Amino acid sequence: MLRLSSKAPGFAEAFSRVVADRRESAVDVAADVAAILKDVRARGDEALAELTAKFDGHDLDTSGWSIDAEACRKAFDALDPSLREALELAAERIGAYHAAQLPENRDYTDDTGVRLGATWHPVDAAGLYVPGGRAAYPSSLLMNAIPAKVAGVERLVVVTPTPRGEVNPLVLAAAHLAGVDEVWRVGGAHAVGALAYGTGRIAPVDVITGPGNAWVAEAKRQLYGVVGIDMVAGPSEILVIADGKNEPRKVAADLLSQAEHDPTSQSILITDDAAFADAVAAAVEAELAALATRETARKSWDNNGVIIDVAAFDEAPALANQLAAEHVEIATDDPEALMRQVRHAGSVFLGRMTPEAVGDYVAGPNHVLPTGRRARFSSGLSVLDFMKRTSFIQLDQAALEAIGPAAVALADAEGLPAHARSISVRLGQ
Amino acid sequence: MLRLSSKAPGFAEAFSRVVADRRESAVDVAADVAAILKDVRARGDEALAELTAKFDGHDLDTSGWSIDAEACRKAFDALDPSLREALELAAERIGAYHAAQLPENRDYTDDTGVRLGATWHPVDAAGLYVPGGRAAYPSSLLMNAIPAKVAGVERLVVVTPTPRGEVNPLVLAAAHLAGVDEVWRVGGAHAVGALAYGTGRIAPVDVITGPGNAWVAEAKRQLYGVVGIDMVAGPSEILVIADGKNEPRKVAADLLSQAEHDPTSQSILITDDAAFADAVAAAVEAELAALATRETARKSWDNNGVIIDVAAFDEAPALANQLAAEHVEIATDDPEALMRQVRHAGSVFLGRMTPEAVGDYVAGPNHVLPTGRRARFSSGLSVLDFMKRTSFIQLDQAALEAIGPAAVALADAEGLPAHARSISVRLGQ
Repeated sequence: MLRLSSKAPGFAEAFSRVVADRRESAVDVAADVAAILKDVRARGDEALAELTAKFDGHDLDTSGWSIDAEACRKAFDALDPSLREALELAAERIGAYHAAQLPENRDYTDDTGVRLGATWHPVDAAGLYVPGGRAAYPSSLLMNAIPAKVAGVERLVVVTPTPRGEVNPLVLAAAHLAGVDEVWRVGGAHAVGALAYGTGRIAPVDVITGPGNAWVAEAKRQLYGVVGIDMVAGPSEILVIADGKNEPRKVAADLLSQAEHDPTSQSILITDDAAFADAVAAAVEAELAALATRETARKSWDNNGVIIDVAAFDEAPALANQLAAEHVEIATDDPEALMRQVRHAGSVFLGRMTPEAVGDYVAGPNHVLPTGRRARFSSGLSVLDFMKRTSFIQLDQAALEAIGPAAVALADAEGLPAHARSISVRLGQ
Repeated sequence: MLRLSSKAPGFAEAFSRVVADRRESAVDVAADVAAILKDVRARGDEALAELTAKFDGHDLDTSGWSIDAEACRKAFDALDPSLREALELAAERIGAYHAAQLPENRDYTDDTGVRLGATWHPVDAAGLYVPGGRAAYPSSLLMNAIPAKVAGVERLVVVTPTPRGEVNPLVLAAAHLAGVDEVWRVGGAHAVGALAYGTGRIAPVDVITGPGNAWVAEAKRQLYGVVGIDMVAGPSEILVIADGKNEPRKVAADLLSQAEHDPTSQSILITDDAAFADAVAAAVEAELAALATRETARKSWDNNGVIIDVAAFDEAPALANQLAAEHVEIATDDPEALMRQVRHAGSVFLGRMTPEAVGDYVAGPNHVLPTGRRARFSSGLSVLDFMKRTSFIQLDQAALEAIGPAAVALADAEGLPAHARSISVRLGQ
């Protein structure tokens, strides 16, 4: 854990290093991924089977390529009732929040008589990547699948690795609840390639979303343009801005809730109370001792954790905007005042009773959020990631006479005479 | 030009080849671009100067690195009045259409007492690529800069190559009109790299938009994730759906308006009248003979032009959706009926008096549109490309008691005890 104070000399440089470090990926897998994608594109299912045997240690022809709807339903029915109700509450709340995101079509005629508008349509098919192993999260499936369904996507395809053939029943239950149409037992960059290019068994999709490891993230990046993707995802992050009135163990729990995700995750505390900073540092140690995920959380906290004490909270927004963190908790008396100044953040959690984890599961907003300072330019997953807009224009003779000559003048100036001609030929010129 | 009939045997296969051909880029410049980006990142302005000398044939230290606001204003004032008015009309109409795109913030408290919402912010800085040489279009500058300004972007940076030092005064005039803050005389993949990483002279931006050649498009693709980008842009395309009641020379002019952009552009006609198809083919030849850009247009039409006659227009929407073209003109008696069935298109031009070129300049909607079948999953440029959304959540004790336990159950099921702990510690557990 790195302890900084804005009052100490050299703070600006030390903080800049924290900011800069968050832009870099630890491993360069671009060449490996490019080779895998080329292979999947050329050899399709044959490549998928070989790579699955190699990376996941099972034979798709024996274990089965896909998991059918009946198996997903059974997994859902077999859930402990309290867990089933929790999943249902999550699905319902996520659905309600995302339904309100649906964009409105436009269709109007302006003063010049030009009819203008835009129509939104869902994509035909979406592919959702669901990580296997440690990160096989049913909540992640809901957060990706529900916005797609709300958008109106007709074909929803999940790819998920099943290491050594092991299927995660929670993921199947969530797939049933979310109405997923196909579940394929493939993961890694090759699964992403299969979704983008299609194989003999898997029809191609138009958009690919969902979190994954460095290979999956790089595959999505390389396929951007062949398909739409949600965002390049990196390690989880949380920035907690908290005053000394908070209980240290609560803030410590919040910091550790991101640290337990992965050794590369990052948790940062900004406080205006140096004694509180020390108390949180001590509380983190106490919490860690009792935490089942302490091995991962300890690595993350020791290597990437940061505690910063500032002279006053009016310094915090500038620091937060530089970090542009995925999650920002504001646990102060007037969280609203700080939020108004935080322009770059994936999601903000206001007040002392809004731990970030509530947003991971049941609050409603999406938990797929920009990481690695990408909140400077990108947003959390939404129904818009599964939709696209077609603009339209309609002119009559009078409207073309009103604005056509200006277009002719510009086309001529740009050296595009056929553009000009297509207008002038209709103006009787 | 390829002549197809849906009534002929083998049509489905022939049409599938047309569709598939549109997905591929002609040149693979990925490795070249990666090397250029690495160089610019490492050596900054030094690399920019060398690459500009090499590709554009001028010395930035002699010709000047940037063009100041005064020079842009002078270029604007020196415009022929009719051209200045045309630019002003375009800017005004583009501004009005895009202002209506501004998204609304949300802030509400649901039945459970959970406060939820989303706040939109502009990015801090945007970089606009403006091609030099043949494709130095002031309209392109307006179409990129105005949505950024409408979004509220504070710093708008243009990069544009000035081959052999030659500046395009129309581009400078448009930069003045649109309120661009900086104009740098660099182009190519290296200019895109400079915008993304920053150099000694050029501060980095958050989003890069604008059309360019294959190197520019690949640079944007590779930098996606470091910055936001609009879309991977390919050659222009038009699909005209026209019945036999149209004048052949008008439809021919529309087809040629895209063909004149570049030899790789593509123009496609679908008609239900085989005789009209022949008449348009003849009219294209007649128009070409008189066209100043015939060298380019001829190559495009001969190599990529397609005329398809169908038995009836009810076949057209399925073909249009497979093509997912950048521009779709519908020149029939009831264009609305066909538009309702066209789900995948960048922009639609309705009726016999709406040539696509009017949308390139003055109609109002953006002319930066998805190409190469990307209308299946992406939209034209809009204010949203220069903005991002931060979701927010606020719970009080009662709200956390209502939905917190479900989150605890899910966190436990996912093996994330620190997530559960951050909630249960607040529920007095």
